[in-house]
Amino acid sequence: MATGRFVEVYLDLLSQPCRAVHILLACAKVPHRVRTVALRKGEHRTPEFTKLNPMQKVPVMVDNGFVLTESDAILKYLANRYDVPEHWYPRQPERRARVDEYTAWHHTNTRPHAAKVFFLEVLAPRMSGSPVDEDRLSRALSDLSTTLDLLQSMFLRRQPFLCGDDITVADLLAVCELMQPLGGGRDVLRDRPQLQRWRSRVQSAVGESFDAAHAVVYALRDRSKAKL
Amino acid sequence: MATGRFVEVYLDLLSQPCRAVHILLACAKVPHRVRTVALRKGEHRTPEFTKLNPMQKVPVMVDNGFVLTESDAILKYLANRYDVPEHWYPRQPERRARVDEYTAWHHTNTRPHAAKVFFLEVLAPRMSGSPVDEDRLSRALSDLSTTLDLLQSMFLRRQPFLCGDDITVADLLAVCELMQPLGGGRDVLRDRPQLQRWRSRVQSAVGESFDAAHAVVYALRDRSKAKL
Repeated sequence: MATGRFVEVYLDLLSQPCRAVHILLACAKVPHRVRTVALRKGEHRTPEFTKLNPMQKVPVMVDNGFVLTESDAILKYLANRYDVPEHWYPRQPERRARVDEYTAWHHTNTRPHAAKVFFLEVLAPRMSGSPVDEDRLSRALSDLSTTLDLLQSMFLRRQPFLCGDDITVADLLAVCELMQPLGGGRDVLRDRPQLQRWRSRVQSAVGESFDAAHAVVYALRDRSKAKL
Repeated sequence: MATGRFVEVYLDLLSQPCRAVHILLACAKVPHRVRTVALRKGEHRTPEFTKLNPMQKVPVMVDNGFVLTESDAILKYLANRYDVPEHWYPRQPERRARVDEYTAWHHTNTRPHAAKVFFLEVLAPRMSGSPVDEDRLSRALSDLSTTLDLLQSMFLRRQPFLCGDDITVADLLAVCELMQPLGGGRDVLRDRPQLQRWRSRVQSAVGESFDAAHAVVYALRDRSKAKL
């Protein structure tokens, strides 16, 4: 039985980094197969999945037996290994370094700060049955605001995308994080026209794959609106 | 006036990521010049340094006018740009992906957990004049212990270095973080023979540059011992 070669990815599209991987695969037309791991059903804790990734986290990529975790590493591996348009992760050392610089910064800035807002507004109240902790939310929004200021003043100061004139994997990681609080009805870029224009540029650059990856976030937003 | 080309690096060797950069430059014999930025004197907040890096953080690298922040990105740039032995950041996509996987993980595991122990035992008591907060320290040590378990069971399970058979920039970033609490007199690998052997392998691989980079940590340790 002959089968073509596929990259297998284990994803839950409610996870921000999973969406970034999903968008790159779709955009760059890398032959792939998605295996859904529903976090809310605890499918990342099954014995099968734990064998694949003892850290019990998504995304996981399997390429011809090579198992890789960490979205940052998966995106760069796909760009290095496959015939992916070069702008996603430029080979020229200075341009590549700009992407590595953002992604390193991302892990302790954009990612935790946007994720915390979503956690406090959506996940924590669901898990505990208690109302939103307004004090913690206010601190989280303040931290996120500092990150948004830096995205504007540092990374987007003189260029249309985070790392230069064209879209890179850095923009995918960032935009997917910043879309997450929308699941609780909050657009964190509402008063940020510069960042809104950047998000629009990212959306145009990736086309339909943006909405396809974010369908689950939109559904969550619509449910949170219906509750009000 | 003819001058050879030098990579300029702005470092404080009491900063863990700065030591990693320092060791790679020394080991791989990249022509470089160190500019010391003494954090304890606030030299990262001077107008000159702020112009160079508005984030006011070290390390910063300047290579022929190209300014780069984030140790992770600097190490990989040096490996990509200079004639650095390939094992530091392998070109083969699967092997390179292993390094990117560890470094992504590092930012939210090894780095914050080891740094917090040092902060609570050394920096916080100095700044506040109060004794060590034992409750917070106990939680920080527990978080660090989980990270050390994962370093053993995941990254070093079947191989001598974090990402394979040879040393990479991942080992430098990790070892420099794990050495930091020694400044407060605490060897976090004391009861961890597997990790001690790994540290010895790293030390042997990088030779004298290890002790040169860590001299300031040893001095701090000796002072903390003298106080007891």
